[in-house]
Amino acid sequence: MTRTDRSPGAASAATIPPYASAAAHPLDADTALEPLGDGSFRGRASKRYCNVGGSFGGFVSAIALKAALLHPKRLGEPIALTVNFAGPLADGELTVHARAARTNRSTQHWQMEVAQGGEVVATATAVFAVRRQTWSSTESEFPQAPPFDSVQPLAPGRATPWMGNYDMRFIRGTASAAARPEAPWDSVTTMWIRDNPPRPLDYVSLATICDAFFPRIYVRRPDIAPFGTTVSLTTYFHVDSEMMAAHGDRELLGTAKALQFRNGYCDQTAEIWTPAGELIAATHQTALFRI
Amino acid sequence: MTRTDRSPGAASAATIPPYASAAAHPLDADTALEPLGDGSFRGRASKRYCNVGGSFGGFVSAIALKAALLHPKRLGEPIALTVNFAGPLADGELTVHARAARTNRSTQHWQMEVAQGGEVVATATAVFAVRRQTWSSTESEFPQAPPFDSVQPLAPGRATPWMGNYDMRFIRGTASAAARPEAPWDSVTTMWIRDNPPRPLDYVSLATICDAFFPRIYVRRPDIAPFGTTVSLTTYFHVDSEMMAAHGDRELLGTAKALQFRNGYCDQTAEIWTPAGELIAATHQTALFRI
Repeated sequence: MTRTDRSPGAASAATIPPYASAAAHPLDADTALEPLGDGSFRGRASKRYCNVGGSFGGFVSAIALKAALLHPKRLGEPIALTVNFAGPLADGELTVHARAARTNRSTQHWQMEVAQGGEVVATATAVFAVRRQTWSSTESEFPQAPPFDSVQPLAPGRATPWMGNYDMRFIRGTASAAARPEAPWDSVTTMWIRDNPPRPLDYVSLATICDAFFPRIYVRRPDIAPFGTTVSLTTYFHVDSEMMAAHGDRELLGTAKALQFRNGYCDQTAEIWTPAGELIAATHQTALFRI
Repeated sequence: MTRTDRSPGAASAATIPPYASAAAHPLDADTALEPLGDGSFRGRASKRYCNVGGSFGGFVSAIALKAALLHPKRLGEPIALTVNFAGPLADGELTVHARAARTNRSTQHWQMEVAQGGEVVATATAVFAVRRQTWSSTESEFPQAPPFDSVQPLAPGRATPWMGNYDMRFIRGTASAAARPEAPWDSVTTMWIRDNPPRPLDYVSLATICDAFFPRIYVRRPDIAPFGTTVSLTTYFHVDSEMMAAHGDRELLGTAKALQFRNGYCDQTAEIWTPAGELIAATHQTALFRI
């Protein structure tokens, strides 16, 4: 275990900068939301963030989170986000609704729903909080990885346009048996990932990146042609806007593994690190698989 | 890594037995819900499941899940459950509402809300599914532990009546510095846990047990008097009613650790195992802490 330990700084309330987006980047253009009032927003499913059979889950996740981020009643920054994928999101208009179910002194509880053509595409919840600087400690271990620049990027597949929005560099556990001559008997993936083109890190891009790991069944069983799709995704954000501003648009290191495959569902537990060794998100999911 | 690998059985749809409860047990008596129609239920916060400053989170979690389990439109069994704790649940009447946001052929997406005195106490979502027998594999490692009978049970504290409903036997990482002469510099807990009195395992008791780990800050910093409370809890169920019936009312082995403590929030990732070595739940949470 490699750990860092920090003494508490001055316990002053963190300054929460307003949520800012760089309009020119594909992620910002494609997740643009038009406020309709009363917590509802209109958006559009993106061809660029398309996956096999509908939008990439990370895109849906970003839309759900963004509705709460843009809501005029928002307090603080995201701590936890859960998105349940109920059905495919097709090309075309979508709506997203965000409701603050309860606002406390320093925490706020959100419920979100993404819909298209009158059907619910995703349900989501989030907890936002105003954080204070205090004692911090990283217990998890920074994954072993050669530098980003020394690893070859993966070419996106034709059926998975969303991958074109990322520079993904696999150190361990790709989804292709051909690309992995020494197949280990586990589902562990370690990869560098960065928005393509690079984009300053914020909660929207981080939420999206948290769903960018291939389904664990693809890694564990590359010998066959499995099907896998995320059903429920939870992310715990261990980062604030100040840390993200300091990180900028550099690459992130992701590591993911399954704990259990059973009867059509498997889980995944993953971590997102900065190259400086800061664990900025822990993200967990359960996925449907067919083999 | 210890792993088990099973070949797929006949891919027949699993038989889903109706949800049954043993009315005599405190957990069943105290989580009793009276249907009010339209997905609403009336219940009562339990003194027996009381924690410092309100109901034990596992109790709130059980109430939220039970509303979906009891709903006449329920399909299949729980795969994923997320509960966000928005405020304390005091003694007295509560209401819980469950809504099926979308029902597909084999999956169903639920939104739940627990309220008291007109205020939201918890928001929750769940995914239910009809599972099929297929290839299964456990990648995580069964924790090292001496047998249940050889470990001393922990006496419940006066301020934490909920603990009296559990037989908890710590192998590693209790919350008390006095009970832990060789304090390791981490937050790992391994413990046996069983309902007290014993009760056949079902989704309600399993959801409750998933919140029975002490806040990680108590384990990591037993030298000081910290405060910790779960804010968001997600559980992935890797078990069906058939497996639970075979398990009966025996003890479960739980292991939990934090990945990151930062600025007032820390996460926890945990696993619940049967003594037979079946990983039946992966459960993750983020908690507020003050030191």
